[in-house]
Amino acid sequence: MLETTERGREYHERVSAFMEELVYPNERVYDEQMRAAGNPHHQPQILEDLKAEAKKRGLWNLFHPHPEWGPGLTNLEYAPLAELMGRSPRIAPEAFNCNAPDTGNMEVFTLFGTEEHKEKYLNPLLDGTMASGFAMTEPAVASADATNIELSMKRDGDGYRLNGRKWFTSNGMHPYLGVLIVMGKTDPEAEVHRQQSMMVVPVGAEGLTILRNLSVFGYEDREGHAEVVFDNVYVPAKDVLKGEGEGFAISQARLGPGRIHHCMRAIGMAERALELMCERAESRVLFGSKLSEKANIQDWIAESRTEIDMARLLTLHAADMMDKVGNKEARTLISEIKIAAPKVALKVIDRAIQVHGGGGVTGDFPLAEMYAHARTLRIVDGPDEVHKRGIARAELKKYRKR
Amino acid sequence: MLETTERGREYHERVSAFMEELVYPNERVYDEQMRAAGNPHHQPQILEDLKAEAKKRGLWNLFHPHPEWGPGLTNLEYAPLAELMGRSPRIAPEAFNCNAPDTGNMEVFTLFGTEEHKEKYLNPLLDGTMASGFAMTEPAVASADATNIELSMKRDGDGYRLNGRKWFTSNGMHPYLGVLIVMGKTDPEAEVHRQQSMMVVPVGAEGLTILRNLSVFGYEDREGHAEVVFDNVYVPAKDVLKGEGEGFAISQARLGPGRIHHCMRAIGMAERALELMCERAESRVLFGSKLSEKANIQDWIAESRTEIDMARLLTLHAADMMDKVGNKEARTLISEIKIAAPKVALKVIDRAIQVHGGGGVTGDFPLAEMYAHARTLRIVDGPDEVHKRGIARAELKKYRKR
Amino acid sequence: MLETTERGREYHERVSAFMEELVYPNERVYDEQMRAAGNPHHQPQILEDLKAEAKKRGLWNLFHPHPEWGPGLTNLEYAPLAELMGRSPRIAPEAFNCNAPDTGNMEVFTLFGTEEHKEKYLNPLLDGTMASGFAMTEPAVASADATNIELSMKRDGDGYRLNGRKWFTSNGMHPYLGVLIVMGKTDPEAEVHRQQSMMVVPVGAEGLTILRNLSVFGYEDREGHAEVVFDNVYVPAKDVLKGEGEGFAISQARLGPGRIHHCMRAIGMAERALELMCERAESRVLFGSKLSEKANIQDWIAESRTEIDMARLLTLHAADMMDKVGNKEARTLISEIKIAAPKVALKVIDRAIQVHGGGGVTGDFPLAEMYAHARTLRIVDGPDEVHKRGIARAELKKYRKR
Amino acid sequence: MLETTERGREYHERVSAFMEELVYPNERVYDEQMRAAGNPHHQPQILEDLKAEAKKRGLWNLFHPHPEWGPGLTNLEYAPLAELMGRSPRIAPEAFNCNAPDTGNMEVFTLFGTEEHKEKYLNPLLDGTMASGFAMTEPAVASADATNIELSMKRDGDGYRLNGRKWFTSNGMHPYLGVLIVMGKTDPEAEVHRQQSMMVVPVGAEGLTILRNLSVFGYEDREGHAEVVFDNVYVPAKDVLKGEGEGFAISQARLGPGRIHHCMRAIGMAERALELMCERAESRVLFGSKLSEKANIQDWIAESRTEIDMARLLTLHAADMMDKVGNKEARTLISEIKIAAPKVALKVIDRAIQVHGGGGVTGDFPLAEMYAHARTLRIVDGPDEVHKRGIARAELKKYRKR
Repeated sequence: MLETTERGREYHERVSAFMEELVYPNERVYDEQMRAAGNPHHQPQILEDLKAEAKKRGLWNLFHPHPEWGPGLTNLEYAPLAELMGRSPRIAPEAFNCNAPDTGNMEVFTLFGTEEHKEKYLNPLLDGTMASGFAMTEPAVASADATNIELSMKRDGDGYRLNGRKWFTSNGMHPYLGVLIVMGKTDPEAEVHRQQSMMVVPVGAEGLTILRNLSVFGYEDREGHAEVVFDNVYVPAKDVLKGEGEGFAISQARLGPGRIHHCMRAIGMAERALELMCERAESRVLFGSKLSEKANIQDWIAESRTEIDMARLLTLHAADMMDKVGNKEARTLISEIKIAAPKVALKVIDRAIQVHGGGGVTGDFPLAEMYAHARTLRIVDGPDEVHKRGIARAELKKYRKR
Repeated sequence: MLETTERGREYHERVSAFMEELVYPNERVYDEQMRAAGNPHHQPQILEDLKAEAKKRGLWNLFHPHPEWGPGLTNLEYAPLAELMGRSPRIAPEAFNCNAPDTGNMEVFTLFGTEEHKEKYLNPLLDGTMASGFAMTEPAVASADATNIELSMKRDGDGYRLNGRKWFTSNGMHPYLGVLIVMGKTDPEAEVHRQQSMMVVPVGAEGLTILRNLSVFGYEDREGHAEVVFDNVYVPAKDVLKGEGEGFAISQARLGPGRIHHCMRAIGMAERALELMCERAESRVLFGSKLSEKANIQDWIAESRTEIDMARLLTLHAADMMDKVGNKEARTLISEIKIAAPKVALKVIDRAIQVHGGGGVTGDFPLAEMYAHARTLRIVDGPDEVHKRGIARAELKKYRKR
Repeated sequence: MLETTERGREYHERVSAFMEELVYPNERVYDEQMRAAGNPHHQPQILEDLKAEAKKRGLWNLFHPHPEWGPGLTNLEYAPLAELMGRSPRIAPEAFNCNAPDTGNMEVFTLFGTEEHKEKYLNPLLDGTMASGFAMTEPAVASADATNIELSMKRDGDGYRLNGRKWFTSNGMHPYLGVLIVMGKTDPEAEVHRQQSMMVVPVGAEGLTILRNLSVFGYEDREGHAEVVFDNVYVPAKDVLKGEGEGFAISQARLGPGRIHHCMRAIGMAERALELMCERAESRVLFGSKLSEKANIQDWIAESRTEIDMARLLTLHAADMMDKVGNKEARTLISEIKIAAPKVALKVIDRAIQVHGGGGVTGDFPLAEMYAHARTLRIVDGPDEVHKRGIARAELKKYRKR
Repeated sequence: MLETTERGREYHERVSAFMEELVYPNERVYDEQMRAAGNPHHQPQILEDLKAEAKKRGLWNLFHPHPEWGPGLTNLEYAPLAELMGRSPRIAPEAFNCNAPDTGNMEVFTLFGTEEHKEKYLNPLLDGTMASGFAMTEPAVASADATNIELSMKRDGDGYRLNGRKWFTSNGMHPYLGVLIVMGKTDPEAEVHRQQSMMVVPVGAEGLTILRNLSVFGYEDREGHAEVVFDNVYVPAKDVLKGEGEGFAISQARLGPGRIHHCMRAIGMAERALELMCERAESRVLFGSKLSEKANIQDWIAESRTEIDMARLLTLHAADMMDKVGNKEARTLISEIKIAAPKVALKVIDRAIQVHGGGGVTGDFPLAEMYAHARTLRIVDGPDEVHKRGIARAELKKYRKR
């Protein structure tokens, strides 16, 4: 059975209790504080309170695989916790200091950062007092093909000069934003997977401008997805992560666990949507009977239950394989969950919206915002089609060998 | 052939020219004026300029079937114009004074209004100097079943007292809002289709509160979809439209043409999305070839072209039947387009979003906003499922007769 | 309006009456005669009787556009008749002498045949005393790309030597089979669209073997879809249609109307399936209510009604455009119906099967056989994907010009 | 991990080797022997040879959970073996004596049979020298609602008189058919789940007629799906299984494992179809490149891989839960796999057919027959809609409790 351990079960109970006691009841408080602030990128007090409480309870940095920095859970142990967090996506991930892209960035700093990086960035990130961005996607090119990446990183004396433009840099509008990890091209002539490098750029660097936020289906997400301009930004050589030409390798290492997290959160959203759909269907009457008694709504509920269960099992299986055979061997499975989980979430949320009638598309329920978020997951970290291509090529290779 | 007339073709050319010359090029201006105003319900100058120009060119109140008030086009003649307007949905319908719910309200005032109503409301509406709302949907009940409507209209001397709550009252945040047409229950004991009445309530009436706007996905639509509270609002008997108990009958008369308009605008949105999809697919390169050369993108384009053509033909056919046999006989066809056109629009827009990658979900392209709008069309004026029920019952009746 | 003419309406009434009086009531007789014969390729007496009656009533060769040979109906006039015939697909098309591939072959002989061809083949075909095959598809190559066609037609003295293998040669098992029109490659060096030729090969030619029938799902269709071997078959030069290198051109001319016929017959099958679905849903009770009262079955009925209406309008529109602007200009529309109509038919038939429970997949209802037939339509005359590619390229070309 | 045991893995290897060595290479032999026999219900020699060899190798009655009669594998251990057998569905299940409905009937005889039943029926069934039928579904009623079952079982002295009609009695045409287990109504007045009984009726009983076979999409399956008439058939009281009124209870016990088997075989079919699809896509060239290089075909392969993986995990999870918490507790999961696995199989097989072009619908590839079989799985043992209703009700109950 795709079962977690005793330890995993214990964390699951504690996170679940935290959600019930502190997160769901405070969603309204969160909304009120955000509305009152009149600034979509405001950091509301309730979130800081929840962070403090989570830290106190030892429910902090749960994602971090290295026991030095967190509980050291395996992917299979952590995945069900990510699902719980996905049920309240605007609050819970950050409350447990488990939100992207900080999680991935913390892993990168842990694995490839210098002592200075650890002190200046990793520690405050682990503390929840700093936020970080990952500047990868570019507005001008199909960034799913990493070789298209154009941001130029030109050698200049003992360092590099960065010129170019990034967007969808999440956390870009976060008031605590302190640092960016930037992917760019150091050597256009090198072998395809050695052209890119990743560098560390502190907020405040000369020439670095956080230009604007990008809305997502009308939402100005609190953490923000920024367009960022690099105008001759200087980066000293010591801030190149792992070494010149290692950008692609780091990004491969970074993406695996992040995709598990994304998918499990998507499944959490889907579960929440199914719950809302059932509650609504129980409470509304149309043409003489409850919505929950109509065969078409029952079909939707049954299909949702089945599809969620399948997507969860696949994701847990991928997490388990990552634990057992590593990111690289589990690569195809990770592509599979990347296309499967958001697709299921979108179907379930869409049905829930329909059952809610007009209310479903408004801010009175979390559904429309969940939809916008899940829709984005079909694009970020590579659009579905790029992952399908990878899966197909792996499959075809298998048959070619026979 | 589902062909328009010579007159229809001429209007089509003129509206098309207006779109090319004045609407598309000013979409950016519109965005800038809205952003500068910092108020999502601002009435931007460019819109007033376009209205003035459209009026000058005789492209005004094109929807109005009565020659006294507009060109007197048939549904089949007007439908292709609505499609053109749908291509720029935030600007064009209002620029031609053809936006919902004013169109439907103007029809209602034309058919059932008193002289006083015509002078006070119809004339400024036809002039584009007033906006109006249609208060039908209620937050507390499944409003698709009209018998669920709960807003109470109790006799009080020579008039009525209105108590209740509505939402999704479009135009509710429009700065020009002058009047509401309100659906409510005058007699809970009457025969099912005689329980409701429609009344005219001016903005400013005592006890009437426009409580708040409802966002749609994350969008605060300019005209607004308001929650409205009626706290003992007094309506004199002369402001009951057509007579007590006529609410249901008026709403039947009102909805037919409105659905044609909605569907044709949805098809216009889909065409625009397909255009954007093709342009993007031509301009982006991934793994060595243009997106437009990849067989999966080609499949999407072909399916979109085919689905749009089918939805358009069905809608034109419904329009033609409305012209020939009337709203009532064409009722089932109107339900068919009501489920078909938004479904096609959503599929096409979703594909276009995917082809645009990250940009597709942002405000840099009109796609995400179109999606939010089209998604709402699956709910307003009765959710899909209610229309499907009607179509099925009509179909089954046919076979029962055999 | 996509309306037929007065003449078209009159034929529609007469064909409809023929179906009601003579075809539907004899479906059982047909089944019995076929079963009794114990030979799936038997020509049952009832079919000959129906042919005689149709001929007597002047409902003969209705498809033929040339007034000399039939009523000379336009595509738009004939299309609704093809729909009626599709409702009883094993009997009606042949009863009216309107079955493929004879229809297409008769057109080819009419346009490109010599006097000898007309006397020996066209006349008996028009008479319904001979059947003919069209040998195009090959088992060894993806035949949708005509340039893949490999059957060799090598010059030999005053004629040609044919060597190769064809399959899916419909009518191949027909007891009246008299002649084949064969597509092959005369000049592999010529310009791509000039490499192929079409030749006339009488049954009985030396070296020609009708090898076997191909079942479709588990059905051995009466007319048969044969695998045919050409082992050095000699064809004199006078039996090359239109001239060497004209194969591709003839096939373009031939396919347009045939696709209208296929699609309208598919729509006729879908209508019949919807009718059966409604009747069954009315007659079965499950968990205390009729199937027809359950919301999911109602959804299926409504979606079927809507999808059929859309597919029919698109096909009629394509027929009308063929009449008005010709096969070539209407090419993209014809590709659109080619993918749309079978898809709709399959969806509707599949739902009807499900409503019939176990009975739906058996020979007790015509549904499973209709499904098998409609599924095949997604492949013959080019698989969906080839048509989608063509539609997309036409669409992209449009946007490129801007 | 949903992992089988060491023992399970060992059986998997042995069954897999048997398939590679003896089943796949003999599919053609099987076809030839069937064709030569000219009787679709012929028992070909190759099958008897394979049975003998499987028995010799100890790969016999693998399904049987009771160690006395087979290896005593758990559901989780047996499931992957059923998948392997599904890859060659006409041969493998019977070769290992693991074919339905004999498996279910053997379980019923093991659990509820008398000593006489065991000697007369169970032993030859376990030996593979007898075949058995399960007469449940009736042509006249929606049998998914067991309370609709109408076959009358009236008390008559020391026994019962059976009158009624069944169909879809699988194995009904099997030359070895020796016995039927029959579901009928003993007491129409009893509490709903106590009205039915199951009785044992030997072939040859007076009044019992195997009327005819039902074709499935044109296929006359070898084992047959028979319509069976009971005309006053006498059954002594000792042949009532478990006791009067226990029919429903037995059927619940019987169905769980059978559904796991069906679903795993469906997944095996899907895997085989994916394999064929990949091989075909690798070998065909269209418009200048291999089908396997086209993005739409790659999408199909990737989606197939992902959907199969999800359906398999869900089915293994259900098997595991059956082992751990029992049939009853796992009921909802079993309904989930019942709708999920055939749906996935149909999608994958349909794509494989399309990639094969014309050949895909013929008997030259196993795809069309697999499709027909998988389509039937959406109906037998209760149509999808009945299972969805059950899943939805379980889900809604959960939310009601909150």
